[in-house]
This record gives sequence, C-alpha cells and structure tokens, in this order.
Amino acid sequence: MLDKQQIRLHNSEEYTITVSDYPITEISRILDVLQAKKIILAVDSNVNDKQPALIKELTNMSEDASLYRVPAGESSKSITEWKNLADFCLSRNPDRKTALIAVGGGVTGDLAGFAASTVLRGLPLIHVPTTLLAVVDSSIGGKTGINHESGKNLVGTFYQPRAVVAPLSVFETLSDREFLCGFGEILKYGAIADTDILTILSGRNLLELRGHTELLKSIIQRSIKVKADVVIRDTLESNLRMILNYGHTFAHAIEKVTGYGKISHGEAVYMGMIAAGLLSDELGASLDHSLLEQHAASMLGSEPLPSVSGDELVDAMKSDKKKTGSTLRFVVLKQYGRPYTEEISDTQLVKKVWETARQRITDIRSGTTKNLNQRTTPAT
Amino acid sequence: MLDKQQIRLHNSEEYTITVSDYPITEISRILDVLQAKKIILAVDSNVNDKQPALIKELTNMSEDASLYRVPAGESSKSITEWKNLADFCLSRNPDRKTALIAVGGGVTGDLAGFAASTVLRGLPLIHVPTTLLAVVDSSIGGKTGINHESGKNLVGTFYQPRAVVAPLSVFETLSDREFLCGFGEILKYGAIADTDILTILSGRNLLELRGHTELLKSIIQRSIKVKADVVIRDTLESNLRMILNYGHTFAHAIEKVTGYGKISHGEAVYMGMIAAGLLSDELGASLDHSLLEQHAASMLGSEPLPSVSGDELVDAMKSDKKKTGSTLRFVVLKQYGRPYTEEISDTQLVKKVWETARQRITDIRSGTTKNLNQRTTPAT
Repeated sequence: MLDKQQIRLHNSEEYTITVSDYPITEISRILDVLQAKKIILAVDSNVNDKQPALIKELTNMSEDASLYRVPAGESSKSITEWKNLADFCLSRNPDRKTALIAVGGGVTGDLAGFAASTVLRGLPLIHVPTTLLAVVDSSIGGKTGINHESGKNLVGTFYQPRAVVAPLSVFETLSDREFLCGFGEILKYGAIADTDILTILSGRNLLELRGHTELLKSIIQRSIKVKADVVIRDTLESNLRMILNYGHTFAHAIEKVTGYGKISHGEAVYMGMIAAGLLSDELGASLDHSLLEQHAASMLGSEPLPSVSGDELVDAMKSDKKKTGSTLRFVVLKQYGRPYTEEISDTQLVKKVWETARQRITDIRSGTTKNLNQRTTPAT
Repeated sequence: MLDKQQIRLHNSEEYTITVSDYPITEISRILDVLQAKKIILAVDSNVNDKQPALIKELTNMSEDASLYRVPAGESSKSITEWKNLADFCLSRNPDRKTALIAVGGGVTGDLAGFAASTVLRGLPLIHVPTTLLAVVDSSIGGKTGINHESGKNLVGTFYQPRAVVAPLSVFETLSDREFLCGFGEILKYGAIADTDILTILSGRNLLELRGHTELLKSIIQRSIKVKADVVIRDTLESNLRMILNYGHTFAHAIEKVTGYGKISHGEAVYMGMIAAGLLSDELGASLDHSLLEQHAASMLGSEPLPSVSGDELVDAMKSDKKKTGSTLRFVVLKQYGRPYTEEISDTQLVKKVWETARQRITDIRSGTTKNLNQRTTPAT
C-alpha cells in the first residue's frame, strides 16, 4: 500500500494524507510547495516533553521557526487559549504563506486548526497527529473547534489542512490506553464501511499491533480512506457524513453523563457501537456482532462499567446542542458495512437497548456469552 | 437591468445579490429556501435607531427572531464584541439552519460574518448592507474580520454569505458624508474595469444621485458586477484580487497616519487613486485623469488636506501587516480600465508622487488646473 493518500475536497481543495516513518522529509516537501519559509509549531505540551527528537527535527525544518506549547488536555479548547495562540502567531509577523503546524492529538489539532483558519483569514495548516485517534479521525475532514460554556465544539470553522503527515513511529510509543483509544473509531470504520478491517483484526490482541508496523499502517490507511471517502462527498456535514456517527449518539451521552474525560472517547464509542448494534437488531436486522464484540475485554478492560441509567442517557441525548428537531437520530446497520440513519421518538426502546447492551458487555467480558470469538452463524 | 445578480463562487457556493426597494420580500424568500425558521439579527445600533420600520419588518419575518445591537463604530470589530455576539447566538439554541442576518455597514457585516462563520462551524449568513460602501464593497467577497492590537482585520475568515439584499430606499436617507463614502470604491470600479461608470457620473454632482433611484441602482449594480467578477475568479485573494486595491496602498497608509476614522475610507481611497494615477504616469502611462479628478470638490470638500508627509506615508506602507516581501506593491493603470500590479522599491518615487498628488488635489479644488471637467485630450 502506498504511503500517501490523495484527498480532494470540493473541486478546489486537495491535500495529501501520509502515514510515514519519514515524516520530516514529507513535511519539508510540502513546505517547499507552499513556499512557506516561516513556520509556527503548535505543540501539545506532553508531546513536546516526550518526543524531543521529533520536535527538534520539526523545528529545524525552517530557519524561522517558533514553537507554541499547547497545554495538554481538553481545557485548552477555549476562547482564551485560541486568543493566546492567535496573539502568538501575529507576534511572529506572519504572512499568508506562514505555515501553522499542529503537533499533537485532537485538542491541539482542533485548537490550532481554528487559529489557522482565523489568523489573517487563513494560514496554511499542516496536521501532524501524534495519537491514533487524531490520525484516523480528527485530523481528517476539516473540522476545527473550541468549547463553549454551553457545549463542546460549539465555536469553530470548517477549514481544510494543506496536508496531514502522521509520524508512524510515534504511535508505537503510545500508552496502552492512548493506543486503544483510536480503536473505537477504527472498529467503527469496519462496522460502517470496510468490514475487512474487522476481519483483519479478528483474533488479534489490538495492543500487539504496536509491534506490527506494516499491519498498523495498513489499518490506519484503510480507516483514513473510509473517513475521507465520506467527507469528500459531504464536506459541510449535512447527511451522508452522519454515518460517521455510528455509536456516537450513545457515546456522546455516555461521556456527558460520566463527565468528560472519565472514560476515553474510544471506550465510549465502543460501548455505543455495542448498543447501536442491538438497536439495529431491534429495528429488524439480525446481525452477528462477534467481529466487533470479541474486542470487549481489550477495549474496556475489566473495570466495572460506568453506572449510566437509561433515563440519564436519554436525557443527555435530548440536550445535545447539535440535534435538529425533537426526535433522536441514530446510525444503525442493515448489515455490517451498510449503515443508515433512523429517527427514533420511542425513548423506552432506547433505554431498553442501553440496559441490554450494558448486560451484554458484562456477559461477554465474563465469558458467559458464546459470541466471543466463537461464531454461531457465518459473518455477513 | 435586473434586480438580482447571481454570483457563483468555487463550484459549490452560489448566492444572489439583490438591490431592491422590496428587501423584505426577497429576504423572506431566501429564508424559505434555507428552511430557516429561527433568525438572529445583528443590527448596527445607529441603524436600529434610525430605521425602526425596516428593523420591525425584518424582525416580523420569523416568529422566532431575536435582535443583537452592535454598537456603532470600528471599536466593535473586537474579539470581545465577537465573543458577545457568539454568546448571544448560542444562547438562542441555534441549529445549523438558524440564519444570522447582518444589518448595517462594514463593521456590522465584518463582525457578524465572523460570528456566523465560527458559531456551530457556520450559520447561514445574510447581509443587509445599509451603507453605500458596504453594498458595493464589504458585503461582497466573503471577507469577515475583526481588528487585533497589532493591526486591522488580522483576525477573520473567508466565509460567503448565502445572500446579499440591499435595501435601496435606505441609501437615500444617508448623510452626505456617508453617501459619498461609497463613491471612493464606486469610482475605483470605474477606474480599474467598467469605465462607463466614470462616463455616467461625469458632470454630475454625486450627492444628487440620492434623488435618481434608477441611476443609483444601476451604478450600484455595475459596481457589484466588477467586484463579483474579480472575486469569483480569485476567492481566496491571491493575485487577481489585488486589482481591487487600486488606490488602497496609499489609502491605507493615509488612514493609518491620520488615525483611523479621521478621514473617511472613501476620501482616503479617492486621494489614493489620484496618487496612483500619477504613479501610473511615472511608470510610463500618459493618462487623462479628468473623469476621476472632476469629483475632487465633492469627494474631499474644501477642508485642508490632512498633513501626511511622504516619509510618514512610506513608513506606514512598510509596516503593513499584510504585505508580503520587502518591496511595496501598487496597483497602477496602463489605461483606465486596464490595471496591473507593480512592485516598487524606489521609495523616493513614492514620496514624490504623493507630494505631487497633494498639490494637484489642492490645485484642482482651487480651480487652478484645467483638468476639472475640461478635457484637453479625448478620454481613453
């Protein structure tokens, strides 16, 4: 498989996504194309501390490089931090060719993306995602954003990067929890589109992919392709892009009820997909969920599940700021690989599905269901 | 000439610009197309006070309308005011179909445009420009922006409105100074592209156009067409769009040296065009400037010209934050209607041209030059 994937958005914007062991070579090439002599690095403070060699190489790419440390953590997605970063950019006397390079996970990418889109009405933006979640999800699709007192990501722009360059070696240094966090989305791409992802991962311990560079790269590239294919056809998020929210109506509500950050986004999405799978069955499908459910132990560990009642969950879903209309909207499956959206007004059904999903996850982890790696029906 | 002008940007964004005596009918039609049931009006405080009938009609367009007063004046183009407006929008529980309608001049349009582009990653935006300057200039082209302590418009986005609807009757109520302010840009469109604008206005007292509705509408529409034609071919402001800056390298510097707001933008642009015309001659043209210069008395009145030395002017030009590279860039003319850009490093030439221009304006106004309405050579 090639290192580089060409992404075309609208008819006028196009950029490459590269997963590479030689990210500096690729970024330098892009800076040449952009004629960017001056660069500003917005670097997650943890990455800055843990990846000194990478940061030094990035800084050395230009004689006029400056570095802004983005404090690690969701609280950096604030108007205050955006203003700080914009002030920093403007203090460097930027021109329209000055490149802003975001080095970090979703927080850094969302914040720096918003700054890039708003300083001088747009600085060229390069994403260097350093988490698995960022490379397969937030760095693709052009969403930037910060949080507002009334909700997450309520302030932001649609703004496409000029390139995404993922430093493959960095992913192999992630902690278990950080590494697994990306697999919520990776498994999702398998569930909604490229079911080969599920087949390839079947029977494997997900953590062991850190030692299989080529396999990891291939899984990342397949995931990027699913997201990019959807985003290309629906840049401004009207309908098609909704399918990327498989498991997310549940996941966002779980995160909201438990308090953001208590459980990882990957864990929440994984639980959400178990629930969405059961909802799909309630709506008429009859699916074999084993390719997804077999990863319950590695995705969720053995800790007790968060105590979220059906009532709390539905209340959180109803208060979602980005909801349009009064019904709840879910992405569900006809089959694995064939998603559709469904408006549901019967909240009792949603509550029942969630309670069933909680029980099912508990059963799978304790080995009391046959579904764990033991197919009873052929995969669809 | 039709009321409506169709503007297509990129291949995906398209909107109409309408100059109409029946703006409410047109805006209501657009809200229907957008399926916008909820509307938020961002209204310049002066317009709110002086045009109660218009504001009432706008508010009555929706059962869920709310109004935010934008304090009149350039100081509203601030991060603070942007945050206030974003907070207000979010407090109204907007969804992606909630329309933000900007009612006012350039300040309101730039601020509300920036808010529209950044709330929920983009609310549909409708411009209702109430100044002549806004309808022929700032409402077209998708530039939004606020000021930063280090310079004007340094924070902002490119974001296209879904429609521009200009309420023609409002322009006839503008004060002399407000009305004339738009003619800096209108005469510029004549100078760089549609020389018929200059011919149509020749021999006329510009202020008297307030009583000639059809003629005023025609001049506005011709101006919009010039700007739209350029913007369509260069949405993100690379090179072609530069020609819209005819007179502006001088004008921005004049405004900076005299202190923003002391002289109107229209006056500064007019003086800048006199200077740019002389610079064109220095660079090899030999132009008859009478169609432009004949309006010196109405555009600049009889007050003493601002005391701006050549040194101050060049210093201000050099500190322009949006400048790329070390030379100064000017738009100049081969002929009227045929602009080009020129990089100039000889600052002595620029100083000399400015001193000559100052003297020339003084002479024209005092009647000591023959050029005022007395052609010595045929118009080019």
